[in-house]
Amino acid sequence: MPHSIDSFASLHQDRFLSELFDFIRIPSISTLPEHNGDVRRAAEFVAQSLRHAGLENVEIIETDRHPLIYADWLHAPGKPTVLCYGHYDVQPPDPLELWETPPFEPTLRNGNIYARGAVDDKGQMYMHVKAVETLMATRGTLPVNVKFLIEGEEEVGGASISKYVPENKAKLAADVALVSDTALYAEGIPTLCIGLRGLVYTEIEAWGPARDLHSGLYGGAAPNAIFGLVELLGRLKDAGGRIQIPGFYDTVRPPAPEEHESWRQLPFSEQEFLDHEVGSTALTGELQYHVLERVWARPTLEVHGIAGGFTGAGSKTVIPARATAKVSLRLVPDQDPVAVVDAFRAYVASVTPAGIRSEVRVLGTSPGLLVDPNHDAIRVAAGVFAEALGRPTVFTRSGGSIPIVGEFAHHLGIPTVLMGFGLPDDGLHSPNEKFKLDNYYTGIRTIARFLEQYGA
Amino acid sequence: MPHSIDSFASLHQDRFLSELFDFIRIPSISTLPEHNGDVRRAAEFVAQSLRHAGLENVEIIETDRHPLIYADWLHAPGKPTVLCYGHYDVQPPDPLELWETPPFEPTLRNGNIYARGAVDDKGQMYMHVKAVETLMATRGTLPVNVKFLIEGEEEVGGASISKYVPENKAKLAADVALVSDTALYAEGIPTLCIGLRGLVYTEIEAWGPARDLHSGLYGGAAPNAIFGLVELLGRLKDAGGRIQIPGFYDTVRPPAPEEHESWRQLPFSEQEFLDHEVGSTALTGELQYHVLERVWARPTLEVHGIAGGFTGAGSKTVIPARATAKVSLRLVPDQDPVAVVDAFRAYVASVTPAGIRSEVRVLGTSPGLLVDPNHDAIRVAAGVFAEALGRPTVFTRSGGSIPIVGEFAHHLGIPTVLMGFGLPDDGLHSPNEKFKLDNYYTGIRTIARFLEQYGA
Repeated sequence: MPHSIDSFASLHQDRFLSELFDFIRIPSISTLPEHNGDVRRAAEFVAQSLRHAGLENVEIIETDRHPLIYADWLHAPGKPTVLCYGHYDVQPPDPLELWETPPFEPTLRNGNIYARGAVDDKGQMYMHVKAVETLMATRGTLPVNVKFLIEGEEEVGGASISKYVPENKAKLAADVALVSDTALYAEGIPTLCIGLRGLVYTEIEAWGPARDLHSGLYGGAAPNAIFGLVELLGRLKDAGGRIQIPGFYDTVRPPAPEEHESWRQLPFSEQEFLDHEVGSTALTGELQYHVLERVWARPTLEVHGIAGGFTGAGSKTVIPARATAKVSLRLVPDQDPVAVVDAFRAYVASVTPAGIRSEVRVLGTSPGLLVDPNHDAIRVAAGVFAEALGRPTVFTRSGGSIPIVGEFAHHLGIPTVLMGFGLPDDGLHSPNEKFKLDNYYTGIRTIARFLEQYGA
Repeated sequence: MPHSIDSFASLHQDRFLSELFDFIRIPSISTLPEHNGDVRRAAEFVAQSLRHAGLENVEIIETDRHPLIYADWLHAPGKPTVLCYGHYDVQPPDPLELWETPPFEPTLRNGNIYARGAVDDKGQMYMHVKAVETLMATRGTLPVNVKFLIEGEEEVGGASISKYVPENKAKLAADVALVSDTALYAEGIPTLCIGLRGLVYTEIEAWGPARDLHSGLYGGAAPNAIFGLVELLGRLKDAGGRIQIPGFYDTVRPPAPEEHESWRQLPFSEQEFLDHEVGSTALTGELQYHVLERVWARPTLEVHGIAGGFTGAGSKTVIPARATAKVSLRLVPDQDPVAVVDAFRAYVASVTPAGIRSEVRVLGTSPGLLVDPNHDAIRVAAGVFAEALGRPTVFTRSGGSIPIVGEFAHHLGIPTVLMGFGLPDDGLHSPNEKFKLDNYYTGIRTIARFLEQYGA
């Protein structure tokens, strides 16, 4: 009774959606300890879905924090092996008041699924599972060997998978990895991402006086932890967006001329980007570089959060004793995260004002990365993608970090096909995150076809 | 039947203390709306205490926020009238975890009363009530005419009393005001404060992108509300503590040469101030000025609180859409708060980075102030104070703001005797605020004697 990929996927699309909704409803927020139970439930959901799809040796692997899930199907001798990766954890949904519908109650509106994790990465990871299920159901077998490795710590630095991969090289051996955690360049443009920025994520704490002081009695002589932190942070970048850490740009590899050329041909309007994606009065950063180069191929520094002193309603005249900020650096090839951390620590110490003590705590690191566009799997992926959307595939980069791609390159020696079906305005990490429903279905079919043709 | 002031005060000191404890136990935090009921209870407690002391015409005066309390005793024709002022509201106690004993459960330890409001200002305000009670009990009458005006908004800008005083000039007419909301220069040194800094308290809000953005996808091109706020705040002062608002120092009146001279003779160790009061590695600010001048007679700018973005445990890679900071300026004579607000708004606008919108909201203002040390009441106060502590009274300033002193000067045309019994390390606005028990008792007796001799 074999069906074609398309007819099976069409016939079962309502079920594929309702299963995804059940998955999204689990608030698996990895950074908040009070959600540990939900993260565990999401892991079990993934394991059950893999079993249902026909995968074997399904394991929930305990770690120091959130479980990994492994599964495989290895009955295609002589065929390549594809390692499918995804993550089932999500970012916190705050600020809650800005969501139009509850973040963990997926809602269909304007042809989109609105929910935290809809596109990052539950919806996209689940496409892999449904693609395998579709192939098994229509052929009774798979065209390639397949391994799945799914994590629950992607949004919190991925410590457990970073430990697991180098310790299980033989188990994870594969020819290529497949990751769907990126976006199309624009609606309808088949896009393979071949470059990713790395990340050094830190928390900086600053201390001033031993205790909170009255600003009337001590203002003018006592150090202020917030102002000290502000002075310190203000010296991390200049007004032109250039990071001030000595030597920071020494190892930055500029994009190849062909990349520059291809980016110039992509549809891009700075005004539209400003008005509709960013929603502000001006773009910032290193204005001498094109926006795409700034977000894809230039390192950056951002402050993600800051807290200190009295922040309730009304006024309190206190000189605060401590303040903290979350600060990250995005890295590009060939910057070494370890060297960056060292230089960052030294620079922070050097710009810490008199009377202030500071500490840099590193919460996670990953290097930037480039994939060779001429690898077999990339070429096959580009072909099926072009066929699916009816126009040539473009090669882009992403400014985001997918640390696991670096781990696979480093420890398993394999490239990664970054075949994502999100859209640039999906609002990852923001209120009203969405995933276009059509792209969910297109993703399932395109991934099934990629596995089929890669095995041919 | 008549007792002397000393023997009555001694006989009743346990009651004077337990009554104060009852007063302190009411968590009358004026800035937090959830404590509005407690603030009201504290007002009723004050009114009842004034009635008990023998005052007449006791009124709880409704306002737009927290009530004022008025009372008087006007049966000393030909004698001067003293207007006693204090406040029954307190600062929030946070951070709660740093208190050794609960902030609203007053505790005796090492000869001190530990509690929020012990010295600022419940304990000191209550000395006035007990001084009047003592005089009435020992003489059956008062040596001067007395009016009380007590507020519940001192810690939140004092809007209601600022409105009440100019509208009730005749009712409040007096020869001098008496305020106990300052400290001795050091233990055992009788101190009259003749100068106060003013205050402009503001909240600055900064907006970047229209919504929180993913820092991987937008980092390098999108404005960051926190970094924008940090850049803005960093330009408010230079590294030498000098405020950068154009024209800000033009009207600053330097201290008189005699003030400079007397301050030089006060016991002061910069090292001890740094180690035991501030508790840091270095003092900051305009190092070319003596520390006492910096905190008493130089204007300053402080950031009291800052908030924005993701501040929970762990990491979230967001470019935040908004951030806020509480920022105040301390003013000295002859700076005009209205002109300072205008100049501050204009300067903040001018240093707001591209892509960021900012707004300055003013939460309160008051001018700096100096009192003539040769006024009758000041001379009498200096005399009884010297007698009480057995050494000459010194004239100092305070870097704090007591806006009402300016209101009394401006609208009632009267000077204020600032006769405070706190100590410099009392920890006003901080965890473990304290009031030395002996000073509470000394204060009651000294204030009773001041009223007695001022009427003589």
